[in-house]
Formats: sequence, C-alpha cells, structure tokens
Amino acid sequence: MSVYLHDIPLPQAQTRLREALEDAGLWHVLGVESIPLDENALGRVTAEPIWAKISSPHYHASAMDGFAVRASNTTGALPSKPLTLRIGPEAEYVDTGDPLPDWANAVIPIENVESLDEQGQITSAIRGPRSIRIRAAVAPWSHVRPLGEDIVATQLVLPAGRVLRPADLGAIAASGHDEIKVARKPKVAILPTGTELVPIGSKLKAGDILEYNSLVLAAQVRAMGGEPTRYPIIKDDLDLICQHVQEAARDHDLILLNAGSSAGAEDFSAKVVEKLGQLLVHGVAVRPGHPVILGVLAKRAGGPVAKRIETQPDEAISDPVKEIASLPPPQALRNDVIPIIGIPGYPVSAALTVDIFVEPLIAKWLGRKPNELPIETANLTRKLVSPAGDDDYVRVVLGKVGEKLLAAPLSRGAGVITSLVQADGLALIPSGMQGIEAGEKIQIHLYRSKAEIEKTVFCIGSHDLTLDLLAQFLAEYDRRLVSANVGSQGGLVALRRGEAHLAGSHLLDPKTGEYNISYIRQYMPNIPVKVIALVGREQGLIVKKGNPKGVKSLRDLAKPQVQFLNRQRGAGTRVLLDYHLKSMTIAPESIAGYFQEEYTHLAVAASIASGRADCGLGIAAAAQALELDFIPLFQERYDLVIPKEFAEDKLLAPLFGLLADSAFRKAVSQLTGYDVSVMGTIILEE
Amino acid sequence: MSVYLHDIPLPQAQTRLREALEDAGLWHVLGVESIPLDENALGRVTAEPIWAKISSPHYHASAMDGFAVRASNTTGALPSKPLTLRIGPEAEYVDTGDPLPDWANAVIPIENVESLDEQGQITSAIRGPRSIRIRAAVAPWSHVRPLGEDIVATQLVLPAGRVLRPADLGAIAASGHDEIKVARKPKVAILPTGTELVPIGSKLKAGDILEYNSLVLAAQVRAMGGEPTRYPIIKDDLDLICQHVQEAARDHDLILLNAGSSAGAEDFSAKVVEKLGQLLVHGVAVRPGHPVILGVLAKRAGGPVAKRIETQPDEAISDPVKEIASLPPPQALRNDVIPIIGIPGYPVSAALTVDIFVEPLIAKWLGRKPNELPIETANLTRKLVSPAGDDDYVRVVLGKVGEKLLAAPLSRGAGVITSLVQADGLALIPSGMQGIEAGEKIQIHLYRSKAEIEKTVFCIGSHDLTLDLLAQFLAEYDRRLVSANVGSQGGLVALRRGEAHLAGSHLLDPKTGEYNISYIRQYMPNIPVKVIALVGREQGLIVKKGNPKGVKSLRDLAKPQVQFLNRQRGAGTRVLLDYHLKSMTIAPESIAGYFQEEYTHLAVAASIASGRADCGLGIAAAAQALELDFIPLFQERYDLVIPKEFAEDKLLAPLFGLLADSAFRKAVSQLTGYDVSVMGTIILEE
Repeated sequence: MSVYLHDIPLPQAQTRLREALEDAGLWHVLGVESIPLDENALGRVTAEPIWAKISSPHYHASAMDGFAVRASNTTGALPSKPLTLRIGPEAEYVDTGDPLPDWANAVIPIENVESLDEQGQITSAIRGPRSIRIRAAVAPWSHVRPLGEDIVATQLVLPAGRVLRPADLGAIAASGHDEIKVARKPKVAILPTGTELVPIGSKLKAGDILEYNSLVLAAQVRAMGGEPTRYPIIKDDLDLICQHVQEAARDHDLILLNAGSSAGAEDFSAKVVEKLGQLLVHGVAVRPGHPVILGVLAKRAGGPVAKRIETQPDEAISDPVKEIASLPPPQALRNDVIPIIGIPGYPVSAALTVDIFVEPLIAKWLGRKPNELPIETANLTRKLVSPAGDDDYVRVVLGKVGEKLLAAPLSRGAGVITSLVQADGLALIPSGMQGIEAGEKIQIHLYRSKAEIEKTVFCIGSHDLTLDLLAQFLAEYDRRLVSANVGSQGGLVALRRGEAHLAGSHLLDPKTGEYNISYIRQYMPNIPVKVIALVGREQGLIVKKGNPKGVKSLRDLAKPQVQFLNRQRGAGTRVLLDYHLKSMTIAPESIAGYFQEEYTHLAVAASIASGRADCGLGIAAAAQALELDFIPLFQERYDLVIPKEFAEDKLLAPLFGLLADSAFRKAVSQLTGYDVSVMGTIILEE
Repeated sequence: MSVYLHDIPLPQAQTRLREALEDAGLWHVLGVESIPLDENALGRVTAEPIWAKISSPHYHASAMDGFAVRASNTTGALPSKPLTLRIGPEAEYVDTGDPLPDWANAVIPIENVESLDEQGQITSAIRGPRSIRIRAAVAPWSHVRPLGEDIVATQLVLPAGRVLRPADLGAIAASGHDEIKVARKPKVAILPTGTELVPIGSKLKAGDILEYNSLVLAAQVRAMGGEPTRYPIIKDDLDLICQHVQEAARDHDLILLNAGSSAGAEDFSAKVVEKLGQLLVHGVAVRPGHPVILGVLAKRAGGPVAKRIETQPDEAISDPVKEIASLPPPQALRNDVIPIIGIPGYPVSAALTVDIFVEPLIAKWLGRKPNELPIETANLTRKLVSPAGDDDYVRVVLGKVGEKLLAAPLSRGAGVITSLVQADGLALIPSGMQGIEAGEKIQIHLYRSKAEIEKTVFCIGSHDLTLDLLAQFLAEYDRRLVSANVGSQGGLVALRRGEAHLAGSHLLDPKTGEYNISYIRQYMPNIPVKVIALVGREQGLIVKKGNPKGVKSLRDLAKPQVQFLNRQRGAGTRVLLDYHLKSMTIAPESIAGYFQEEYTHLAVAASIASGRADCGLGIAAAAQALELDFIPLFQERYDLVIPKEFAEDKLLAPLFGLLADSAFRKAVSQLTGYDVSVMGTIILEE
C-alpha cells in the first residue's frame, strides 16, 4: 500500500519545476517561426523586437484634398488682400495621401481657395483652374503629413513578447514587413486515464464517469496560446499509460496526465513519472488540487534526464553549486527532456492546477507575461474555514450592494464544475490563515469586469425557479441576477447586514397566517422596505414516481417505512412544515429524516429521485423537473423584499418593469404549480 | 463637385443603423448552428439556454478511497470502544468516484480504518480484509458526493448569450450534451479601395500607400467573433467597386468598404451605397473617423431595400408609425438586405470606426453583450483642445505616479497607427466640451489592466535612444517604461507637478558649464532629488549622405544655401545650440530654419533624410539610424533626474540595478556615439 503523497508549499513546487527546466535548457522561448503578416497573426507573440524597415509615410504626404504650395509664396495674403497663385509653378492640386511636389512645403485645403479660370473668374472645376485665390497665409508644413510622422525607419515598432493586437499588425505592415517572427506554440499532450471514464455523450451506468477534463484542459491550453492534443481515454494500466506517455513525449513540449495523481490503489501517475523520468513533486499544499505531480521525462526512451540530487529545499537554495556539478552541461540536455504534470481528477482541481502550473510555463515558452487577473477587495458574506497549511482557492460570486463589493462563496466541492462556471472570481485564503470571518475583507482575482459586477442584482434568500427565469429576462436589460440560496430567514438577515439588494421570502407567520411582514419587523427593524408579490405557488409532497409508499398527507410522514428529507432551518418551506406539523400535533422526532437537510427544492427532488429519501416538502416544479410525483398540500405566496434604498435605485428598475411584462408573466405561468395573478402586487411600501 | 458630407451626432447615427436593421429583421442573432462539443467551441456564443439532460454525479459517488458503510451501523464507535464491521454486508471497499452500494449511505476514508484479516489481526491489504475496525461514528452522507451535487437534471446550466469559457465546456459535457447550439459567426467582407494602394510588402514609390487597413479590420472582426473575408485591392472606379460590393453582398452579412468615404473627387463609397441601396448616414461627429458612411443594400441586385422616409431625427423619434406604414412587412425583407459601412481611410479612424459601429453589431448578431472597456479616471498631463460638436477620442499612455493616475496624450494624427499600438487607453472628450485643461480629471477606457499600469515607470523629458533599450531591459523585470518626449526643461517642470517618476535631462548651464543642477534648482525648488548619470553622448550636425552642402561647423549654418531644422525650445540640444551660437556670436535670425522645430532626434534626422532640411543638431545614433552623415561637435552628459520619493520606491529598483548591469552597458555602448563610462555615477543625492 503506497504511502500517501506529501504536500509541499506552492512556491517550493514552482521553484522545483522551474529549476529542472532551467537545467534542461527549457526555461525560455521554445522556438521561433516566421509567419505571414495576416489576420492569423492575431494573438501570436513576437519573438524578437520589430524594427521599422521603412518610414511611414515614406514621403511628405498631403493630409487634405487641396493645393500644394510653398508657404513663403502665401505670405501677406489676407481676407481683404487676396493673393493669386498660378497652377503649375505655384500651386498643384493634391488628393489626400498624394506626395507633395518637391518645391512645395504646405497644402491649402480645397475649401479655403477660390479656383479661377483663364479669365480670372471663379470656377467650380477642381482640376481645371489656371490659378487659385487665397485669403490667408499658411505656415510651412501645414496640412502635410511629413515623412516619418508615424514611423521612422529603424525605430522600434514593437518589443519582443508582445501579444499581437489588431492595430499592431497594421503598424508592422506600415513599417515595411510582410512576415513576423513569433514564438512557436507549445504543443501540449493531454492524456486522460481511468478505467471508469467514458467519452462525452455516452449513455451512462452507475460508476461511469464522463471524461470531460481533457476538453476543459485543451480549451485552457488553447486560450493560453498553446496547441493541445487530446488523447483517447487510457485504461488504468501502468504499462499502457507508460507507452502512451512515451509516445506523446516524442512530439510534444508538455504532457498533462490527468487523474491517477493521488496515492490510491489505481493511481499510477506518480509511478509512471518515476519509471520514465524524475518525480520532482508529488503533492502541493493548494486546495482544491493538492495531489499534483510535477516531473521531467526523457523525450525518447532511454534518453538522459537530469537527475537532481535529492535535497531539502533549504540546501537546494543554499548550495546550488553542489547540484550543478552533478548535472550534464545544459546544452547536452536541451530539448531532450519534457516536463510532465500529473493533474488531479476532480474537475475544479484539474482546471485550477492548469491555471497555477501550466499558464506560467506557456507564458515563459511564448515569451509573454503571465496572465494576471485583476484584483479587487471585497467583503465576504459568510465565514470560510480553511486548512492552515494550504493556499485555498474559493470560487465566489460578486455584487456591489450600496458602496460595498460583496463576495459570496460558491460550493467548495472540487467536483462541482458549475462553481467555476458561475464564479465571478477566485478568493485566495493564503496558507497560514485558518479561515476568514463573515464581513471581513478578502482579495478577489476577478474573472469579470468591474462594470459587469456593478450591473449585478444580488438576490439572497429562498430559492424559487422563477428567479432563473427572472435572470434570463433581466439579461436583456443589461442586468445580471445572481442568487444565493440561504433560506427566507437567512435572506432577511443578509438584507439587514446590507449584503444583498433583495431577498426572496415566503415565511408564514403561524400566529397571523400572513406572509413575511412580521419576520421583516423582527429581522430588519428600522429598515424601510418595499415588499412586492412575485408569485403564488403550490407546496406539497414530492414523492417517487407512482408514489410507492402511498404518502397522502403530512400524517403519513410519521410512518416508520417512510424516509423523509427536510429543508434547512430558516427556509420558508421548513417554517410551513413546522406550522402544519404543530397544528396537526405531529412530533418532528417521529419523522425519519426530519433532521436531514437540503438547501433547495431541486436538491430535495434529486435526493428522492436517487432513492436517498421517499419524500420531501417542496414545490411542484421541482417534482416535475425530475419526473417525480407531487401531492399538492398548500398554496403559498412568494414575495420579494427590497430595502427602500435599492427599490429606488436604477439598477433594479428593469426588475419592476418585468413584473408587469406579459412575456415574463407568461413564461412563469407555464411552470407547473405557479399562479401569476398576484405578481407585482405591492404588499408593503415604506 | 460633391457637397461635403454632413456630420450627425453619434447616437443618432447608431439609431439610424439600428432602426434600418430592425426593419430588415436583422437586429438579432443571425443564425444558429450545432457544433460538436470540443475545444473549438471556446469563445463561441450559446444561442439558447442549456438545460441539464442528466445529473452530475448521476449516482451517489464515493468522494474518497475508503469503505462504504451504513451510518447507523457506526453509531457508538469511539477511540476507546472500537466497532468491527464485516466486509460484505456492513462494509465494502470503494475508490473515489465509485458508486455506493444500495444499502450504504456513507464512506469512511481508508486512513481512518484498521483492516483486519480472518484472525482479527491488522493487515495491510486493501481488498483482502474480512472486516474493518473503526474508532469513530460517521454521519450519513459523509464523504459521499450525492447524486446531483454538481448538476441536477433539467436545471439551467448556461444562459443564452454566454461566450464559452473552458470550464463552461466541462459543465455542458457534465450535463449530458455532446454538441452545442451556438450563434453562427457573422461573415464580414472587407473591401479595400484606392488606386494609390499597394499590397503589404510592396516596394514603394512616392504616392504609394501600403494597404494594411483590411488586415487590421479583419483582425478586429475576428477578435470580435466574426469571420472576415479580405478582398484584393479595388481601383477607384465606381462601376468596379459596385460590382465587387454586389458580389460580396451575396454571401456575407456585412460589408466594410474601406476608404473613399469622404467627399473628394475620388471618394466613391457614398455613391456606391446610393446606387445600390440606401444611404442612411454620411458623416458622424466623431474624431478621428468622422467621414463614416452607413447604409443598407439589397443582397441581390434589384432586390428590395427598405426605403425609410427621409425625416429629421426628431420626427423619426416622435412618429415611428408614419414610417413603418410605408415599409414592406419585416418578414418580407428578412435576409434580403445587408448593411454596408463606409470606413474612413486613415488607419486610426478606420480602427475606431470598427470599434464604434461594428463591435455592437457583431455582438447583437452573436447574441452576446457588447464589449466594454473598463473605465478609470486619470489626470490629464497636458491641455487638449477639441471641436465642441464632436465626440473626440484621444489615445493616451497611462502611469501611476504617487497616488495619481496620469494620462499623457499620444499623437492625435488619424494617420499615426503607432498611437494605437502604444495606447494604454482611450480618453473621450464628449461633444459639448471644447477641450480639457492640463491636470483636470478625464475618463479613460482602458486597453491594459490596472496591474500593468501600476508597473509603469513614467519617464518624461528629453528623448534618448538609450531609453528604448532601457525599456526592453526593464521589461525583463516586469516593469514597463513609458517615455514622453517634451524636452529637458519640460521634463523638470513635469517632475515639479508630480507627473512623472523621472526625467531625462541634458541641460547645460552656460554660466557654469555644469549640467542640469542649476536648472533643477530653478524648476524644482524644494524637491529633493537624486541625479544619476546615464550616458555621455556626442552631439553634432546631422547632414545628408555625403554632406552635399559641405557643412563643417555651426558657423556654416548661417550660409544662405543651408536649410537648418531646430529642436523645440526647452530641449537640451536647443540649449546647447544657443550656448554655442552665443559664444560664437552667430545670430539665430541668420540661420534659415532656426524657428522650424522638431521634437526628437529621430524626427530631425528623418526630415533631413526626406530633404525637408539640410542639417540639424542631434546625436550620432539618430544620423546612423537613417544612414545620414554626422559631424561631431561636442560631448555632453545625459542624466536621469529622479525625485527622492520615487528613487526609494521599489518600482524603480530594477532601473538602478540595470545601470550596473554589464549586458545593458554593453548594449548601450554598441550605439554609435555613446560613452557608458559615466553610467550610474551619482551626480546629486538629497
């Protein structure tokens, strides 16, 4: 049984890889190629500085349609004392861009002259006149683009390492080039391994895992400027993997070996690297993603691999001479070695590992700067706990509420790729910190522009499917609706803390039978609000198809054979359940699964579909979505609670418009169990 | 002679185009295509929302390597009171990702169990044991990824209009898709016209203009997500242009007709549009770029074009019904009409016109949001004058000096494409403003990230070729050197105003023969500075190859046949000239061209190369760069003047390191006329 991998700090891991590549002569631009100067050069990286071969313009050019003249001939011309210049020796018609005659040093725009015919009469012909009359002197070089105005021959046009933008291509052309030397694109082999993997689009059985990491990795590599090759899935077989790795090593610059990077029974990646080359790192103190492998291989089987003496990091830094002495000269190794990175299997870990280790490597190989995400400081909406030894990356959504930029953490599961899809940014909890309290400031690496974030409507509280529809409709009005599901009460608390623009709430007051108002008074005292009805909706029991346990009412939940699944405390659905249980004098303890909590209607439905439970309280649409049965029990009202300060903000204006929009109302009414007749009714306005 | 075009305000021009496209049924996504889900989908735009076909995981999956158990069987286990579970009915080994057995609802990680053999002894075999011993109870569903943890079948995975990022592709795959519906790429025909145009790479004669606008435009279109087609150069011939436009109209979605958009004798674009369709706009109040043409054509010759009634803009807004009544029903026009944009000929105008008019159109056709550049507020370093009626876009370089973000305007010439290459951002002087004073705040649309801008060393003052080399070497240290050339005195004034980190200066004090110190006292009183020598360099007369006028010394400048070209007032070279002219009692007025000013050494050299002047005072390297002759006259010292507050800033640390760097010193010493022996000498430190 293999010993579990040993995590080392991120900077140390990066240093080991860099040093190994330096030793191998691979820590610089990989190669230079000459490409034609056309639109395919966009995004390529200049491999050397570009010097101008010619000037632009390469002659003195007229900047206007007009008459080329010699400035000294115009001296003394005044509105009251015009001068006449003869066509030929003293004035010559030029179009914009035409070269000036040798004797000329200025241009008078056509609209500033009177063209005269042979008789000295004004004529409208441009090219016909015998002379022109002017009523103002011109300075030398006026309305002329002198030679070299844009580019002077021999000047530096672009430095090396420039990622080419459209205008750059124009400047390169203007300076006399018709091809460019750019860095060769690094070729990256991506090898997915795992007996349980099946290709995208496969019909799945339990235990099958869709292999899409290679797709994400390939897209990342391409976005970084590399050239990815995706290999077919390789079974968990050490020899088979070794064989494919050796083949890939021959004609690539980097190998990404996906999954099998941990230390389980079928994790072969570390063994592959040890067998074919040198394992530099196995385990990095980064979350998600820690079972990372870094190594180098010989490009050809049996070729040389620089074997660094195994040293403690401190020694490695303090006495590099000792190591270098034991290595073949770098020149001998050049191009004979290829780095390999063992990428963890969880999709979020995989993507972040590529960002952390592959991006800087491709940047170095292309000679460009590493990509840097812009950084902003935000307030964290809830506490985060983190292992003290790890650099911990947390995906967050961002919104600006009042003057505060807020970061709401998304699911931290390394298997939850939708957290990367939804993320507006990445929060780093550096190693040494055990976590961050709610409300504290945290640095966020932004995936989105600040402008987009400022158009974000931050909705918190109870989840409802209508919010997904609302998000789609709001997008048409250049607003982005982001909703975090913390239950109705959680939403009101968040509003009090100034952490959202609005909250969805359906909290029944057991005393009054009224929705939300008493809770708003309790949780948000002294905050003026607007409460507006969004929908009426059915709540009921979600049960398996065909209702095998024959559940009919809340009373059946207490039957021993019925496994229930609850919503979390604070959720409106939970309040509703407790209200009815109490009125029916059913003890919560009598219900199997009462203390099992899920956070959304869909999660409850999914658990029932999967067999984790027999039934749960929720909305009809969630049951329908997963083809489950639904036993309607109650009708309830779902409101939007909006502090007055935001209700009057133009950010939210499109939302109020949509509540009266027939297309939106129609879309909502097509969801099963929804009633739009209350939509837009103002329940409270302060 | 055609009447000059009439500029209308930008929003009005945009409205006219949008309305015409709405009428033609072309103001939405152009078309939908289904593409395979692979890395080529990166950057494409989803044409419809993507709903999950399956859940992910689609079964309850172990999140760890370990043993699947039933949580209730573990109740009561304690470190002091272990429990034993039998392999088979009570515990089953699972790898990460394996499905849980039906009866199990939790996983105990392998490192938390003791494996026991038949005799109840601890064994190291993973799969061999007959039972496991545990010393802690586990909660239900711990170390399990429940069905739907990432994605629940039927949920919204991605909205329509999403520009696909790498992780998005993974989420689409995870939700059961193997292809995606994306917006068809708009096909954009780019037609360069102009008899004076020659292809990139041509050998040039006076009057030839390199045709590279189509390259820049094509690259812009591609970066926006469109599919460009570049046509060969078309001569200025109305029928020929019409013929090519009609051909392009058949299989494209948009035509960009480049140049000929003004109203000169050979400007045919407006005539082409009038002949083949409808001219909507000729002239927009935007600088650079105002002679823009917007129109619509029939896709096939003789096809229908929606002829809007010509109205004043106010009427158009107040009475849309009147117009619509006169149009064929939109359905009839759909896809029969194609927009055409006449793009001005100057490269900066052309590129900005595409940003302003084509970007939003392609965004609409792809269903994505228009690109928005981030905006920051900066202090302008010098006054800008602008026509009151125009939206005026000025390219700027940006740097952060102390707490101030500074914007230094670049050349405003519409022909200066290098101004787009160098630009860090675009300042907009909106119509209604006649200009902005130096020091005032102005909004900048950023081309670069704030992080990059904060790594900018802002150098102002006298120009020297060494600064270009310095910029290249500094890039290796993640610093960007931006230099603005305003002459030595201008640099010192800028330092006093806090508008740069350092200034290059070579100001000779005629009284003391010493460089810079007395000027620093005069222009920067009470500001502690560090002055450090950069280079010694030769100044002399730059003359034409072979020195046809036989210039030997400053005295020859007064000869009537010698045309001189001066540097601007405040430049160190100008001070040097004046010092020597005075000591030699040569009157400035006796020198032809003394009042003609250029701002850099290279510009002086270029003017001499072009014949604009016979000689000028400058440095040897500039003469060599343009293959001119050089008559050395004086040796002078070029210093860097750095306020103490910046000299101690880590931003500038790499600069001081380079002054002692042998590779940098060698590179400088290889420039003709440079002496590096003084490099790094501290002249003054306060």
